[in-house]
Amino acid sequence: MSEEPASETPRAGLSRRGLLGLALGAGAAGVAVGAGAASAIALTRPDAASVADTHQFYGAHPAGITTDVQDHLHFAAFDVMEGASRQDLVELLQDWSYAAARMMLGLEVSATGAVGGSPEAPPDDTGEALGLPASNLTITIGFGPTLFSTAEGVDRFGLASQAPGSLAALPPFLGDDLDPGHTGGDLCIQACADDPQVAVHAVRNLSRIAFGRARLRWSQLGYGRTSRTSATSKTPRNLFGFKDGTANILADDTAALDEHVWVSADDGPTWLAGGSYLVARKIAMKIETWDRVRLAEQERVTGRAKGTGAPLSGGDEFAAPDFAASGAAGLAIDPRSHVSRAHPANNGGIRMLRRGYNYVDGNTALGRLDAGLFFLGYVRSPDRFITVQRSVATDLMMEYVTTVGSGIWAVPPAPSEGSFVGAGLFS
Amino acid sequence: MSEEPASETPRAGLSRRGLLGLALGAGAAGVAVGAGAASAIALTRPDAASVADTHQFYGAHPAGITTDVQDHLHFAAFDVMEGASRQDLVELLQDWSYAAARMMLGLEVSATGAVGGSPEAPPDDTGEALGLPASNLTITIGFGPTLFSTAEGVDRFGLASQAPGSLAALPPFLGDDLDPGHTGGDLCIQACADDPQVAVHAVRNLSRIAFGRARLRWSQLGYGRTSRTSATSKTPRNLFGFKDGTANILADDTAALDEHVWVSADDGPTWLAGGSYLVARKIAMKIETWDRVRLAEQERVTGRAKGTGAPLSGGDEFAAPDFAASGAAGLAIDPRSHVSRAHPANNGGIRMLRRGYNYVDGNTALGRLDAGLFFLGYVRSPDRFITVQRSVATDLMMEYVTTVGSGIWAVPPAPSEGSFVGAGLFS
Repeated sequence: MSEEPASETPRAGLSRRGLLGLALGAGAAGVAVGAGAASAIALTRPDAASVADTHQFYGAHPAGITTDVQDHLHFAAFDVMEGASRQDLVELLQDWSYAAARMMLGLEVSATGAVGGSPEAPPDDTGEALGLPASNLTITIGFGPTLFSTAEGVDRFGLASQAPGSLAALPPFLGDDLDPGHTGGDLCIQACADDPQVAVHAVRNLSRIAFGRARLRWSQLGYGRTSRTSATSKTPRNLFGFKDGTANILADDTAALDEHVWVSADDGPTWLAGGSYLVARKIAMKIETWDRVRLAEQERVTGRAKGTGAPLSGGDEFAAPDFAASGAAGLAIDPRSHVSRAHPANNGGIRMLRRGYNYVDGNTALGRLDAGLFFLGYVRSPDRFITVQRSVATDLMMEYVTTVGSGIWAVPPAPSEGSFVGAGLFS
Repeated sequence: MSEEPASETPRAGLSRRGLLGLALGAGAAGVAVGAGAASAIALTRPDAASVADTHQFYGAHPAGITTDVQDHLHFAAFDVMEGASRQDLVELLQDWSYAAARMMLGLEVSATGAVGGSPEAPPDDTGEALGLPASNLTITIGFGPTLFSTAEGVDRFGLASQAPGSLAALPPFLGDDLDPGHTGGDLCIQACADDPQVAVHAVRNLSRIAFGRARLRWSQLGYGRTSRTSATSKTPRNLFGFKDGTANILADDTAALDEHVWVSADDGPTWLAGGSYLVARKIAMKIETWDRVRLAEQERVTGRAKGTGAPLSGGDEFAAPDFAASGAAGLAIDPRSHVSRAHPANNGGIRMLRRGYNYVDGNTALGRLDAGLFFLGYVRSPDRFITVQRSVATDLMMEYVTTVGSGIWAVPPAPSEGSFVGAGLFS
């Protein structure tokens, strides 16, 4: 049975529609999904030498959170189409999981891929990543508050009772000027890779797989770590020219991750345990205004030295800020500086895992750079983000930024092999 | 005299405004510009180990044309401000040249840079590339037709008599639907680097230096080569999933470059000899439509096999297409295919040096990818591009693309050390 090419029995991790519609994995589905998947499909890897550049879609915690931040981001938010059923949603998540797992191994979205199918059919895979290594691709999928909502009294997908109690659209913050075209979404996909073509290929093909079930609401490209060869520090700089991410949670700090990032079984709901909450914020920077600010003021606003990234209270980049230390005129670190307002010491100990990407969307009609920071923060509960955001929303840096996009999604734990993302929500 | 910090005598390659305005290189100007420049400023390089990743702004042919195509592009078109004088334009080109030469060596735009100046002044350099290697940055500057034009009978900058006779706005082509916000410009800057932050930093700082003299008209980011570790081929793929650039002119083929790319002294005008003409075309791809086309038709449209990139007449990727070869039904390569219409054999032997970059500008309001190819082609004369473009403008691929932006610029030869780009135009 499992060797029959076009079985009409939907399998965990691969929907009937996946088999019959886009023909994803038709024929190879029996071997490509399930217990022996990784070894079976590894045979067709385009570049066996780059297995080191792969991450697993299946496992415990979702990939793309503690994974070393890749160079490039393509983030996309989707809305499930009006009229789509609960079963449509399940099948979409099955198909996405199947394709995501393959792409993270450096494979095409299906066994036939871009050129292996019938010449008389559109290829399953769009082909632009053909021959490229996996490039550390991670695909992280999240569920927005609207997925659980009731529209006109109707529970859209029968999920209302499973909604995390704390998952709701973020409240308005000072400095928000949100564009609906960059805000919200029933589902999100965070695709990160060291090659932009690989990240774009992932979002493009997952969008294509969603056809008729969900459609792209908005998307954002960004670039991140930049070169790793700096002699002095690996901390990247944002477009204000300052190091950004110095005090982040490290991937091997499991205690901090358990305390600040991963939803625990006690937190509930059960289906989300081992997952996290993702907050995305598109923060437009007033680049030209900032560039005309004197260096001392830029540093006061930030609370750190521009060159070294050290807190203005002294030490090196990684020194703890001393908010009581004296400077030339009063406190060394202004209490309204960004470092002060964002620091765990001033927010009840709250920390986030941040994966910020710089973005440049060309320029505005006025000839100014349309650029800033695409903030991605992972927290154990939404209220933690809200607490910190209310603190930084009145810091000195707010004069130079506007938040133009925003969203929050619950990111379920990684599925077990052969299952699909969010399966626990539907069982 | 040359050791005086704030000399008011403008030097070749550094304007009075550069010295007195942004304070670019003030103090260090005497050593930073001129015969000993490279060795003098190399002392302050942030990362001496990465000198291999640098290119020279000064020399014979402009950098960024035959240079190995870098991973990332930030392209920008500028208009000289109304009311700016010929002297303003000269000083802008001097300041741009000075800053470009420094940045291509991995240096900040001035000796004081992002943190070395007075804390009570805005820094000369915006700082986001601080600590990053030069990343093979090249900065290539071009002059558009409008720079030479007469507005209401007035010769804008006294350059009308020096205009290359063939430099004019491109004629309309079939398939054009040009957005004025992505078309034309008095000046252009092509910044290419392996690190996107370095390319963005270059355009941002050159825009800033232009303040009050020229303003950004439009800009475009793109990414290019993608990973270089493919076992089979280094030719990148465009967003149609096909290899793009197989038959390009190679950097070491000096005979082909002289024949097809570099303006000769006989071609005229004299100031342009050793330079080239740059044509930029923003080609939007109808991604979703293309993705639904059957493989055989995609290959017929392109004239090449999707997987290998080989021409449909047979052989491997680098085999010459045989336009007379027979296929299953008639000719193996459709005469209206892109490879046929673009091929030198069908265009009087014309070849171009292409530096195409894929672009993804997010998505349209309909949820479709806003993506395509940012074509950069270098030719010895504009008519060569026009001939080929008229040929491809009726090929089968036109059904799937729309050209939404366009421009042409004359790219002068690289200045001699200590001089500035286009100096020959003003002498």
